[in-house]
This record gives sequence, C-alpha cells and structure tokens, in this order.
Amino acid sequence: MAQTVGELGESGVLQRVLSRLSVADAAVLGPGDDCAVLSVRGELVVTTDTMIEGPDFRAAWHGGFELGWKLAATNLSDVAAMGARPTALTLALAVPRDTPVSLLEQIAEGMTAACRTLAPGCGVVGGDLGTAPVITAAVTALGELADRPAVTRSGARAGDRIAYAGELGLAGMGLSLLFAAAADEDGIADPAPMAELWETQPEILSAQLAPTPPIPLGIAAAAAGASAMMDVSDSLSIDAHRMARASEVRLDLSSARLSEAFGVQQGVAVPIEAMLSGGEDHGLLATFPPTAELPHGFSVIGEVSPAALPGHGDSSGLLLDGAPVAPSGWDPYVVRWPGA
Amino acid sequence: MAQTVGELGESGVLQRVLSRLSVADAAVLGPGDDCAVLSVRGELVVTTDTMIEGPDFRAAWHGGFELGWKLAATNLSDVAAMGARPTALTLALAVPRDTPVSLLEQIAEGMTAACRTLAPGCGVVGGDLGTAPVITAAVTALGELADRPAVTRSGARAGDRIAYAGELGLAGMGLSLLFAAAADEDGIADPAPMAELWETQPEILSAQLAPTPPIPLGIAAAAAGASAMMDVSDSLSIDAHRMARASEVRLDLSSARLSEAFGVQQGVAVPIEAMLSGGEDHGLLATFPPTAELPHGFSVIGEVSPAALPGHGDSSGLLLDGAPVAPSGWDPYVVRWPGA
Repeated sequence: MAQTVGELGESGVLQRVLSRLSVADAAVLGPGDDCAVLSVRGELVVTTDTMIEGPDFRAAWHGGFELGWKLAATNLSDVAAMGARPTALTLALAVPRDTPVSLLEQIAEGMTAACRTLAPGCGVVGGDLGTAPVITAAVTALGELADRPAVTRSGARAGDRIAYAGELGLAGMGLSLLFAAAADEDGIADPAPMAELWETQPEILSAQLAPTPPIPLGIAAAAAGASAMMDVSDSLSIDAHRMARASEVRLDLSSARLSEAFGVQQGVAVPIEAMLSGGEDHGLLATFPPTAELPHGFSVIGEVSPAALPGHGDSSGLLLDGAPVAPSGWDPYVVRWPGA
Repeated sequence: MAQTVGELGESGVLQRVLSRLSVADAAVLGPGDDCAVLSVRGELVVTTDTMIEGPDFRAAWHGGFELGWKLAATNLSDVAAMGARPTALTLALAVPRDTPVSLLEQIAEGMTAACRTLAPGCGVVGGDLGTAPVITAAVTALGELADRPAVTRSGARAGDRIAYAGELGLAGMGLSLLFAAAADEDGIADPAPMAELWETQPEILSAQLAPTPPIPLGIAAAAAGASAMMDVSDSLSIDAHRMARASEVRLDLSSARLSEAFGVQQGVAVPIEAMLSGGEDHGLLATFPPTAELPHGFSVIGEVSPAALPGHGDSSGLLLDGAPVAPSGWDPYVVRWPGA
C-alpha cells in the first residue's frame, strides 16, 4: 500500500519533494525559509498559471511526471514569450489527503526534468503544500530580461511578417484522441488504453501531456528584433486575435504557408483546422519587421496588415487567405469538457 | 439573480477583476500580456501561498473582501519576514462556474485594500483565471531587498533577545469562536450568526478573517540588525521550533513577558495557550543581538540560549520558563478541521 501525504505529514512530504527539485542558478537562498532570494539581472518578468484536476488535466491520463513537466513547460513558455530567460519557478501544490506521496515526488521530478531540458539553469526555488478536494497546482515563473526591453503582444506593425515556432495543433489532436480512445461516453477518463496509445501515437500524446515549447527561441526572437510575441496557449485563432487587438492591426495568415511549414509534424498530418483551434501548443507567435532576419526555428505564416476601419469589430482582426476567422478554442468559464 | 462567471466568460470576468486592482509602483508592464514586467532594486524575494475553500477558509464566514485581504496580507507578511519591501503580487484564481462575478470583484477589492493599507506601492501585476470545484486562490508575492541581505530564520545566536511584533493568538481565538458560534456539530459553517459576531467580537474575528500583519516592521527589524526573523503562520510554538532548528539554538520564552506584552490585545484577554498554539497570526518573530535597539512595535518575549547536546532532538528547541514546549498548531495534511 502506497504511503499517503496524510500519513506522512507536511514536513515529511516537503522533504521528499524538495530532494527531487533542482536548484536554480539564480537562487541566493532556495526553499525552506519564508521566501526564496534571487539575484536578477535587469528587469524581471513574472507569470502564473494553475492546473486543476478536472478542467485542466485528468490524473488517469497524466502520470505525475508528465503533469510536473507540463506545469513547468507552460509557464516557461510565457516567460520566453516576453523575450526573457526563465530563472526560477515556485510551486503551490494542494492535494487530497489520500494522495500517494509518490505522485508528488513524480511531479517534482517532471518539473526538474522540464527545467533541465527546456531552460537549463532554471529551477524551483520555493513553494507551498496544502490540501484540496482535487489535485491543484499553481506555478509562478520568473525570468530576467538582461538589457533588452520585453517583447509584448502590442508591437506588431503593418508590413511585418508573422512567424511561428514550435508545434501547432498536435496538442489539440492529442486531447481529441484522449477523449475518443481513453474516456467513456460521459468523458470520464480511463487509464486502461494509455499504454497502447503511447505505443501507437506517441507524438500527439506527448504534445498534449508533456509539451516541449521552444523556450530558447524567445530570447532569439527578441535579439532578432521581433516587434511582438506571445505564447499560443488557448489556440492560434484566439491568441492571434488578441495580438491583433493589442497591436491594432490585422493578421493575415496564409493557409499555403501554414500547410507547408506545419502540415506534417513529426510524421503526423495536421489539418489547418487543428492548427487554428487546437490550443495548448505553447509555441511562439511573433511578428518581425521586414528587415529582421528570422531565427532558425521560426516559419513565416502570414503578414501584418493595417487594421480595418475603427469600430469594425474584433472579428476583423484575423484573416486566413483574406477571409475573416472567428476565434475558437478554450474559454475556461464557457467551454465545458465532457466529464469536467 | 447575480451574474455568474460561466455566463460572463473569461475576458469579461478578467476585465471586471482588473478594473478593481491597483497598479504596483514597480510595474513596468501590468496585467494583460504573457508576463508582467517589474523593475527590481537589488535582490528579489519570492513566496507563494494557496487558500482553498474547505481546508483554508469557509465562504460562509469570509466575505470576498476579507478573503482577498487575507490572501494579500499573509503573503505580504512572508516578504516582510525576510526584511524586504513587498513590490508585487500575482493572483491565480479558480472558481466553480456558478460563482457570482461579484465575489471575484470583492476578492480583487480586498487585495487592493490590503496592499494600500499594509504595503503602499505594492499591487497585483498579473494572474490567471480558471475553474475549480471549490474556490482556489494562489498568490505569489515578490519583494525587493535593496542593499541589505535577507534576514533568514537561521541566524539566531545564543545571547540574542527574542522579540515579536503583531497580534499573537487572536486569530486562533477567532477560529475557535467561528467553530463554536457559526458552525454546526459537524463543523459545517453557518453564515447566519456572522452579523452578530461582528457586532460583539470584532477584534478576534477580524484577526482571523482579515489580519493586519505589521509589514513595515520587517524592514525596520532588518535595519536594526535582526539576526533571524520569520512570519508566524502555523503557531508560535511550531514556528519557534523551526527557527530553533534552523539556527541550531534553543529559544527560551518567558510567560511573564508574553503576558505583559500580549496578555491583553485590543481589549481582549489572550491566554498563553492561545499565543503558543493559535496560528494564523502572521506577526513577526525575530531575534536581535544584545547591542541592537529594537524597533518600536517589537516586544521582547525571551532569550536565545545554546542548543542542547547534539542528538537531543527537536523537542528541546523551544522552552517556556525553562520547560520544553512541544510544537502544536497547524499541519495541513494531518490536522483535520471538523467539516473539512
């Protein structure tokens, strides 16, 4: 019988989790005091994100390792999207009392592995443990800009090229696969088919469960002079609309360019619809002035044009081959996943 | 019928919440992009804390305003305990879809009010909205040390005086009152008596529901040369044990000094037992070398003595009038509140 967090108690659980975390290079003082202490070069960026069992993930699909990996990866990606270098994460984790301690250890191991792989030098500097009716994890990520200004989503200008780096649509296809092949009619997750799915379709499963956003390309894009950048988390169509609105421009995407660059990813055919509405890709959407040289890893997918007439409304912010595209993807308060 | 977050959707809820948050002085870029951007003087401190309906609070007792206030206050207090100035908070908030939008607005207003009152210049720079089966709030607080090193819990030395600033025991008495007078036999919270309790016993209720930790005294203690400092959140006996262990010393508390300084607070008689085991006070426990002048607001409550023989065990870390005191208070995984 696996030991639970309720049996081990807070300080024992903390010790087991801490021993599995890597120290951040920037940490002057790591976990264990009221606060961690960091040294920061230049301005600081900060972002926070929560994953809650049910709306955000299913424990039946995610092992603890994948969950920890995804928690780190999605927050690192927000830091990269500002053109910053991720330096540190904090983790607030609350779980039911009957949760096996091993699940928390796996989460810590997954976060550590994601930091080492995606953002070497970044680590978990502090956190908080508590109880909750379902597994609840909130991560805050910090990054440093050194001497460059942050790249926001509001700097796109008419004439700029639109480019994307990372996977596009695979994560959403992974979620569809999970609901089709590893859930019942009510959307209740079923772990039984997971081993076979990992055998047969590892590419789209890992894109969904343990994504690998191109973190170093955030700094590379900033250095190359990107005029605007953001992390695509809800979907390309939703997030491109946000960039268009913030920059007061229109983004014209090209289906030919999208298909050429992203029509086949890791051997998997990805339809345009999945690229536009999939969500959870955590790639980087950026715009570059005509003179900028794109960093290797970015593909041009369209062009920025002037905004429509004032008052024309949001639906004109994003075009595909010249025709308006409505935002579609993820709204946590409106979209209802089956079983959530 | 009050509008719910499910009816309004994410961007509408976000707008309503953001309009109630105050901007942090340190914010170069506030909420709305992938990250906020902050300017930081010197080293940075960071801490995170979660409050979840059930184990951490009851919506029947807390209005949204008090909840937001407490969320900010408890995190600001961790920053103060390092000798730092709080500069910014992030808020990750997840609620059931049928939650009234007004509750989220009140939470934002409470956080803003707590920042203005306790740590002027600090504000909420970013966050995340999501759904959860119960109200779930994770706050991360950032602070700057300017040019002083952080005051940790490990610097107490034999001969130092032990001092405390803030309320001590009132918050725990408030929780006992709530379970006695505003909950049924199973511990299920009942909002009906709250108005009368606020009339008759406002001091201990507000200590529990909307605490006012002495944030500026954190910097004052650091400037005065405090050798160790921490926020008392779980209870004086638990947290003093932690300081003793981290500093490898013994803390000898004096019941006479405790009674003299904290026996009556805001007109309320507070027994020693409540001071030692109450928890959630969020005052500052600090040690000062013999030559240091204590900042106004700190009261001496004992003295640091050398550690017992190595291997003597944790129970010798804290004494009251020379007799060992066991840690008692709050362990989130072991203590079970009725109804939680």
